[in-house]
Amino acid sequence: MAAMIELVQAGGVTSPKGFVAGGTCAGIKSDTAEALDLGVLLSEAPAAVAGTFTRNKVVSPSVVLSRQRVAGGHARGVVANSGCANCAVGEQGLKDAEEMAALAAGHAGVDVDEMLVCSTGLIGVELPMALIRQNIGNVELSDQGGTDFARSIMTTDTRSKEIAVSIDAAGTRITVGGAAKGVGMVHPDMATMLAFVSTDADVAWGFLQRALSDAVDASFNMIDVDGDTSTNDTVLVLANGMARGEQIRDGSASAGAFREALTYVCTALAKELARDGEGARTLIEVVVDGAATSGEARMAARTVASSLLVKAMVHGRDPNWGRIMMAVGRSGADFEESKVDLFIAGIQMVHEGVAIPYLKDAVISAMGDAEVRLGVSLNHGDASATAWGSDLTEDYVTFNSAYST
Amino acid sequence: MAAMIELVQAGGVTSPKGFVAGGTCAGIKSDTAEALDLGVLLSEAPAAVAGTFTRNKVVSPSVVLSRQRVAGGHARGVVANSGCANCAVGEQGLKDAEEMAALAAGHAGVDVDEMLVCSTGLIGVELPMALIRQNIGNVELSDQGGTDFARSIMTTDTRSKEIAVSIDAAGTRITVGGAAKGVGMVHPDMATMLAFVSTDADVAWGFLQRALSDAVDASFNMIDVDGDTSTNDTVLVLANGMARGEQIRDGSASAGAFREALTYVCTALAKELARDGEGARTLIEVVVDGAATSGEARMAARTVASSLLVKAMVHGRDPNWGRIMMAVGRSGADFEESKVDLFIAGIQMVHEGVAIPYLKDAVISAMGDAEVRLGVSLNHGDASATAWGSDLTEDYVTFNSAYST
Repeated sequence: MAAMIELVQAGGVTSPKGFVAGGTCAGIKSDTAEALDLGVLLSEAPAAVAGTFTRNKVVSPSVVLSRQRVAGGHARGVVANSGCANCAVGEQGLKDAEEMAALAAGHAGVDVDEMLVCSTGLIGVELPMALIRQNIGNVELSDQGGTDFARSIMTTDTRSKEIAVSIDAAGTRITVGGAAKGVGMVHPDMATMLAFVSTDADVAWGFLQRALSDAVDASFNMIDVDGDTSTNDTVLVLANGMARGEQIRDGSASAGAFREALTYVCTALAKELARDGEGARTLIEVVVDGAATSGEARMAARTVASSLLVKAMVHGRDPNWGRIMMAVGRSGADFEESKVDLFIAGIQMVHEGVAIPYLKDAVISAMGDAEVRLGVSLNHGDASATAWGSDLTEDYVTFNSAYST
Repeated sequence: MAAMIELVQAGGVTSPKGFVAGGTCAGIKSDTAEALDLGVLLSEAPAAVAGTFTRNKVVSPSVVLSRQRVAGGHARGVVANSGCANCAVGEQGLKDAEEMAALAAGHAGVDVDEMLVCSTGLIGVELPMALIRQNIGNVELSDQGGTDFARSIMTTDTRSKEIAVSIDAAGTRITVGGAAKGVGMVHPDMATMLAFVSTDADVAWGFLQRALSDAVDASFNMIDVDGDTSTNDTVLVLANGMARGEQIRDGSASAGAFREALTYVCTALAKELARDGEGARTLIEVVVDGAATSGEARMAARTVASSLLVKAMVHGRDPNWGRIMMAVGRSGADFEESKVDLFIAGIQMVHEGVAIPYLKDAVISAMGDAEVRLGVSLNHGDASATAWGSDLTEDYVTFNSAYST
């Protein structure tokens, strides 16, 4: 039973009850003098917290610290900076992350252990702690500050990414808000993804972590810009219970509705990240159905969305479907080639493994849309999955060739 | 004990004794009227044969047929075409592969079962059999025809790739020659990559297959252009014994020397494929040492060579070493960040996980060379591996945005 999900106009992380946020310009992104680069998101009440973090073996000490604190199950807020990843800087990194969290906790008036920390930007450079000490006090926390917070985590993103939805949870109106950043166009090494989700639902901790992991698997873990996994990837959710109503846990009447709302917010933010990928002009949505297992459907969808040749083909509006077939074939999913149907922008290109006639001009025209859907029916089972990718453009290469020199 | 490997001037597949080859323009690559696109390589005597093939689940029927025939252990030759991959065309594909092999066998005067077949080009289009029937008779087979054969398998390659070496094998001079092609869809897992190796050594079949598999693992399976694995990848070796001398098998005095020569030829051709990747200007060589296992060294080296951000960084001559650290971190190899040393073009950038001062202009200058070596010392074990990649340029995107239209 699908929940009635209602979009909050101009919503974001401060849409749920009891959340305040803000951002300031600390000068960390020195080349863009007016850009916000230091932000705080705070819950006015203790909140259950859950997180998912990068699986890169090289991990930012900011991630190490947040992961430790998330394990405690509760937090009050998070401080985030853009312009510096605080990664591959030796032992100084953990000291700086701890000090940054302490500075933000002091400013917000909460215990230091309740403050998480996230960083995004250049790898191999130490955090400019003097700038953070000097400017943390300028972060004005208000329930109108969600957009400033979302802007403060941007690196080369061309726009901020925010959303909030409301659902009815067993009689209580609860709201789930989110902000994220992904990739951009000026300092592409900052292709770190961060996402922050806030909710005024009262959510049991174990359930919150499982619901977040599932939502991330269906959203952020299904997008691809360039195949590289950053050292700082983090998704955090804070649930402060200020909407009142029942605590949501496994078996609760509203457990399913909460999962749907959380997944909706994560998916909307994930699609925005793919749409705003470095140099990207087109959002590619890959829908695989008829797979033997959900895992195989996911592998197939993500492999197609990640293929450079598929990305370049969408950029060029070239209905070169053989590349989709190639990518599905190398994905590891099981299928029989003679059963596969392929679709580009809703137009069938292949039936049972063989090309069928189509109007090339119609497909080329449809491929000019801002979103292009690629459909793959394996006809080998009942499982399906959706993945999203950005197209590959000359601009991606240009931006990424000319970063630090 | 390293064998004395002697390079044959202007050598190729017809350098070993008893091999003839040729190529003609059959009009399969219709856009380039004069381009050779149909070739035959033939041994004048029965030859032991071994092969490695794509692991893509979608496989060209040309590969299916050759794989079957290679399993028999002996062959006389191979017919190859460029411009059409004979893939994802339904049941017609196997019929066409069989007919193409039969036409070539008839032309060469050998049994139909002794002729292998390879195809490379656009996926999803049937072989133009009328053109092949009409033109197979124009393939002139001679011991000077190696270059025409190498040219006939080119698609978007900018140059043909050929090599031959000689070694002394227990008193007998034997020669190993090779030809290859491969430009895009190159992340071979045994792309549109084809390689043909000929030798006049007398080699026992089981040993030949094992020696080839090992050589391919160290060469073609360690290159990357764009992370995609084609449906047609094939490496074949034909050994006709016409140099005379002892049969080479496990334990033979010259077994090691033969393996070295075979690996030398495969590595030289693999590096040429990476150097001539679509749009590429720079060959990237990634050397990982100090890994716990050979498998982990291979994963780390290939992940760095495959990273788009590393490829773009080399293209832009940008010593942005954080991207190398990121790629090693996501490779799956085990290591401790605080022990890692990184080098770009021989200049150390990172010592024990932390940046050290370097002259940026010196590194930028060194990155302007035609080959750039990236060194990663994990200091975590004794295993090492080398991988090769092309840089990522705007031309790759421009080219692949408009391939079929």
